[in-house]
Amino acid sequence: MTFHATVLTLYPEMFPGSLDLSLAGRAREAGTWSLETVQIRDFATSKHRNVDDTPAGGGAGMVMRADVLARAIDHAAPADDPRPRLLMSPRGKPLDQQRVRELAAGPGAVILCGRFEGVDQRVIEARGLEEVSVGDYVLSGGEPAALVLLDAVIRLLPGVMGNDASGEEESFEGGLLEHPQYTRPQLFEERPIPEVLLSGNHAKIAAWRRAEAERLTRERRPDLWAALNKDRQRVP
Amino acid sequence: MTFHATVLTLYPEMFPGSLDLSLAGRAREAGTWSLETVQIRDFATSKHRNVDDTPAGGGAGMVMRADVLARAIDHAAPADDPRPRLLMSPRGKPLDQQRVRELAAGPGAVILCGRFEGVDQRVIEARGLEEVSVGDYVLSGGEPAALVLLDAVIRLLPGVMGNDASGEEESFEGGLLEHPQYTRPQLFEERPIPEVLLSGNHAKIAAWRRAEAERLTRERRPDLWAALNKDRQRVP
Repeated sequence: MTFHATVLTLYPEMFPGSLDLSLAGRAREAGTWSLETVQIRDFATSKHRNVDDTPAGGGAGMVMRADVLARAIDHAAPADDPRPRLLMSPRGKPLDQQRVRELAAGPGAVILCGRFEGVDQRVIEARGLEEVSVGDYVLSGGEPAALVLLDAVIRLLPGVMGNDASGEEESFEGGLLEHPQYTRPQLFEERPIPEVLLSGNHAKIAAWRRAEAERLTRERRPDLWAALNKDRQRVP
Repeated sequence: MTFHATVLTLYPEMFPGSLDLSLAGRAREAGTWSLETVQIRDFATSKHRNVDDTPAGGGAGMVMRADVLARAIDHAAPADDPRPRLLMSPRGKPLDQQRVRELAAGPGAVILCGRFEGVDQRVIEARGLEEVSVGDYVLSGGEPAALVLLDAVIRLLPGVMGNDASGEEESFEGGLLEHPQYTRPQLFEERPIPEVLLSGNHAKIAAWRRAEAERLTRERRPDLWAALNKDRQRVP
């Protein structure tokens, strides 16, 4: 099964970008996922092919027009297209690893890259766009966010990672930040690898890693730690 | 003043990527920011130029070696280089618009792109790397995250945005999500622009936008809303 991504953008040249190399690039060559870009400007009908206009009520910046975007979306994804329609937007629900997993298990995604001055609210409602945020910062447009979302999804598609196990052991996969890692050389600038990791005692190593992951999560991300403990209490 | 970005990566071809186009591309041509990439592999000394090795204590994936990374960092940023040294990592502090503003006000950044199986903890400590996370999901590597971080920073550099005002009015700039936006046409698929926005009454429009931004933040991001109200209470 191929994961089909369609990206609606004013900058189709930004794609596949970093997704053309490494794991994602090889996976695309292997047919694990496909990428189509749609130039939003092709759906403008005015003489100057305008895709945006000034905000109703005044203010800085420009707003992308509902009618132009609706035509682009309807072209890219007819009403019976089962793929979720995402709008990359800092107003959206924060992307997390659970949503990434859900997307990777589905048929693909239609991704609209807005300019962050804004997209006319009516097309969001009329086309049922799911607003997705990659983080609490403002980008020049949705394109870098779409590249991040696709990168996260693609690495979870079947066969993409050389070693399937590492997908499950990483950060967030158990609701915790990842424990510290070490590798050769055994001594780096007078800093040794913690002894327990060289002990060969697998139970002790697993316990150390778990304790370190819990400590890091508590210290750095009290929000994740609180959410994890709430989830635990729900399970009887 | 130019913002100098140095990116340490195994995939220098991923840069400047999307940053070569649009606002960021023009700003680079104008000398507002500069980009240097450093191929980490050039600092490997073994016969096969290995940059990683198996994790101490066992487990899936590979870990990037402290000695190789330390040489690459020392080459890119001598001890007296005033730029912050960032490691893109899902274990890091979540990037927010305040940190973006701080970075944009500084001389630049040295950005290390890890593979997320991990970077040897000792180089993080020995070189004082600041771990930065762009969100709670796992990427194939730090490169897409670095592109996102740089995009967010570059748009705030002096002269990059056509209209400086819009930088301040957007999402997060007041701790709130942005209010809904509308533009022509006045009627889209039987959906009109809200009347208040066409009233010409600037005070009413500002009040409506503020109320909408507050409503959206409360509904979608109770975490941001709580943080905002905590900040307010601190101010006497």
